[in-house]
Amino acid sequence: MSDPVTDHALSCEPAFRDMLARFVALPSVGADPQQAPAMEAARALIEAYLAEAGFDNIRRLGPTDSGQQAIYADWLHAPGKPTLLVYGHYDVQPPEPLELWHSPPFTMTERDGRLYGRGISDDKGPLLIALHALAAWRAVEGALPVNVKLLIEGEEETGSPSMPAILEQNRDLLAADAMLSADGARWRADLLSLNVGSRGNGGFEIRLRTAAKDLHSGRYGGAVPNALHEMARLLAGLHDAGGRVTCPGFYDGIPEPSEAERAALDEVPFDAQAFAGALGSVPRGEAGYSTLERLWLRPTVEVNGMWGGHTGAGAKTVTPCLAHAKITMRIAPGQNAAAAQAAVIADLRARAPAGSTLDILDARAATDAATVPPDHPLLAACADALEQVHGQRPRNVRIGASLPLVNMVKQNLGIDTVMFSFSTSDEDFHAPNEFLRAASIREGLAAWCAVLRRVGAMDPRDFAAFRAV
Amino acid sequence: MSDPVTDHALSCEPAFRDMLARFVALPSVGADPQQAPAMEAARALIEAYLAEAGFDNIRRLGPTDSGQQAIYADWLHAPGKPTLLVYGHYDVQPPEPLELWHSPPFTMTERDGRLYGRGISDDKGPLLIALHALAAWRAVEGALPVNVKLLIEGEEETGSPSMPAILEQNRDLLAADAMLSADGARWRADLLSLNVGSRGNGGFEIRLRTAAKDLHSGRYGGAVPNALHEMARLLAGLHDAGGRVTCPGFYDGIPEPSEAERAALDEVPFDAQAFAGALGSVPRGEAGYSTLERLWLRPTVEVNGMWGGHTGAGAKTVTPCLAHAKITMRIAPGQNAAAAQAAVIADLRARAPAGSTLDILDARAATDAATVPPDHPLLAACADALEQVHGQRPRNVRIGASLPLVNMVKQNLGIDTVMFSFSTSDEDFHAPNEFLRAASIREGLAAWCAVLRRVGAMDPRDFAAFRAV
Repeated sequence: MSDPVTDHALSCEPAFRDMLARFVALPSVGADPQQAPAMEAARALIEAYLAEAGFDNIRRLGPTDSGQQAIYADWLHAPGKPTLLVYGHYDVQPPEPLELWHSPPFTMTERDGRLYGRGISDDKGPLLIALHALAAWRAVEGALPVNVKLLIEGEEETGSPSMPAILEQNRDLLAADAMLSADGARWRADLLSLNVGSRGNGGFEIRLRTAAKDLHSGRYGGAVPNALHEMARLLAGLHDAGGRVTCPGFYDGIPEPSEAERAALDEVPFDAQAFAGALGSVPRGEAGYSTLERLWLRPTVEVNGMWGGHTGAGAKTVTPCLAHAKITMRIAPGQNAAAAQAAVIADLRARAPAGSTLDILDARAATDAATVPPDHPLLAACADALEQVHGQRPRNVRIGASLPLVNMVKQNLGIDTVMFSFSTSDEDFHAPNEFLRAASIREGLAAWCAVLRRVGAMDPRDFAAFRAV
Repeated sequence: MSDPVTDHALSCEPAFRDMLARFVALPSVGADPQQAPAMEAARALIEAYLAEAGFDNIRRLGPTDSGQQAIYADWLHAPGKPTLLVYGHYDVQPPEPLELWHSPPFTMTERDGRLYGRGISDDKGPLLIALHALAAWRAVEGALPVNVKLLIEGEEETGSPSMPAILEQNRDLLAADAMLSADGARWRADLLSLNVGSRGNGGFEIRLRTAAKDLHSGRYGGAVPNALHEMARLLAGLHDAGGRVTCPGFYDGIPEPSEAERAALDEVPFDAQAFAGALGSVPRGEAGYSTLERLWLRPTVEVNGMWGGHTGAGAKTVTPCLAHAKITMRIAPGQNAAAAQAAVIADLRARAPAGSTLDILDARAATDAATVPPDHPLLAACADALEQVHGQRPRNVRIGASLPLVNMVKQNLGIDTVMFSFSTSDEDFHAPNEFLRAASIREGLAAWCAVLRRVGAMDPRDFAAFRAV
């Protein structure tokens, strides 16, 4: 099935590649102050493109004195049609270690059907796919089929520090029926899927003190507590032998997967042994659940770092008085993130040995898991668009990771987000030799053209039930 | 009770203090290459003193190309009398942190009955006490009551790396009936005691790998092992809830304290609560044993360091693939050190989780506990000497720490060592404001004069039963 808009978009692939090459050539590493000129050049490149594509109201959002401003633009000339907030980001990860790249990170290079370059998969390629699809609609039809607001961030790779304020301070400006994200990789190249949810997260650091100072292990060892022994016991006690989190109340609210859900998961082509084997590891987790259930539907408590005592070269006969650990959680659908984090902290406090001091440091606001309602109209539009392009229906999947932006948008704008990126999770973003499959460009252009058409056929009232007041 | 030798020694206290001040003024920090001139000056000071005191055969032992040579000298003109090997050391700990000293570390300073200075208690003061007592005998009697060999080390504070070779290569030169050490602090200022034993030690490092690389805690967390969880479980499993080491075979060979031993320990004035409270801690250890039993008669397995994952600032959502720990043991009387260390390693290997790799690194040769036989003649002579000076019998005590030199001497020379230092364990050696109680000088001079006289009344054959072949 073809249409003039898609045909035009696909015919522009050479121009698309030219612009992608220019975009990749800008080392827009937001974390590196020395790359401030490249960040500005990336903003200017996008703004020029948006102006040429006929977007209105092009402006920057966020603090001017620190951080990297986000770009806003809109095209709101489709009265009676839904309004989509389209998201992407122009900043990239640092390219280091440079010596591991097979071609220069900021020179787009094609090899064997893959386009290499820092940021090409995360998120420059997928962002330009969205922008080119919008431009194709304007070029062919003179108009977009929906109202569109663009939010193109420059701090995604540095944790989006300005985004909460941007969203909160621009609620009216950014008001929309749903967000369609050009970020958020597809799960696998061999399985057509749409991501319908992510786990939430939370975390904190703990510090356990068992004496006023480190002690000589000969003069005191065996007669006073050793902070490392106590910390090991605290951390080991977070899980039982079956891998289940033992903190009372931690699992509250999480529904057991229904037979139908389990059956659906069992149908996903997935080899848990190969999955772990590729990581040099083995499958292990909460007893009674499959690997995909553990990743998508079950929460975790994980120790991300622990340290104490003598960690340098050689031996030191010390009975350490201090031990430290960093702990994070992944929050499952149904779980109240704040309550779950409180449950873990309460359990640690309850089990801290008598005579010791347990401090909780740097506790962060935990976020709930995010789920796109299964009957959300944008989800249906995206699935239809993928089916049109690929000839098959995508499978709904989740990810075990967290998407803070999705929570922020839901919280501040009251709308759901569907991930519609055409990067794939194996494309080595955040690592050397990041690449984008060249075939994804045409898939993405066609799918974005199609999803815009499908949303354009919807009524804004179709979204009303899914918008928080 | 007084005698001319002791009277003379005590009358020389001003000269003693002069020499101690000169000795302390030399920053003989063996660990600091910049202090090589001070180390040489310290050796020269001692050698000059020994020559003046009439010692023969003054020479240096040990490698000339690295490390700090030990000083040897002897006086062997008491035919038919026992031969004592007298030990001390001339090197000191680094003085840092300098800002915490209340007077310059290398300027002997008296305040409130205490003489302050780096190394004054460990071991310059106690060493000079021994040398001055020997000199007093020569000055008054023209001869020593026993044959004496001196071994004065310059690497004690850096782990005595040359000492095994020095002992092995000079067995004939150093042959003696027993060793009398001017090093090894008295337990407490408020309890007259003689140390009759020390714990042995051993140790190693472990490294646990659960995957080929660190993994994203969202994309993999909950579905593969976390090296820190597994390490925490390994370490926590070294002890049961009662503080008893769980490794099978670890306690083999250790006798339960007899009723008489327990009664003797109970008689030692000792407040376990105050002991731990002074450290900002609480008493805790193996169930069923008192604090002194835990320190003196029971072994330990201790984690001295552990680390893994993200230990820097901020949070990192990583599922770590590697975890590390440093482990040492204190070996109790009766225990076979090598077997005990092997038992701990075997237990860790047995409990390492399936699919992981546990490496044992840097395993050291474990040493047995050392005990001076209760009927050893030198122990009796020292007890008699202390009773003569203090008017009461010293109590036999042990220390929980390890004295590697005692084991080395037993192994290479076949003789036992009695500790006869006049420093006290609270005198902040290895810390700022190290001091020596001024009163200890006279106690020490009198006691050394007396012990030499008592050993001089003994027959070398009294020692034969205690010398290993």
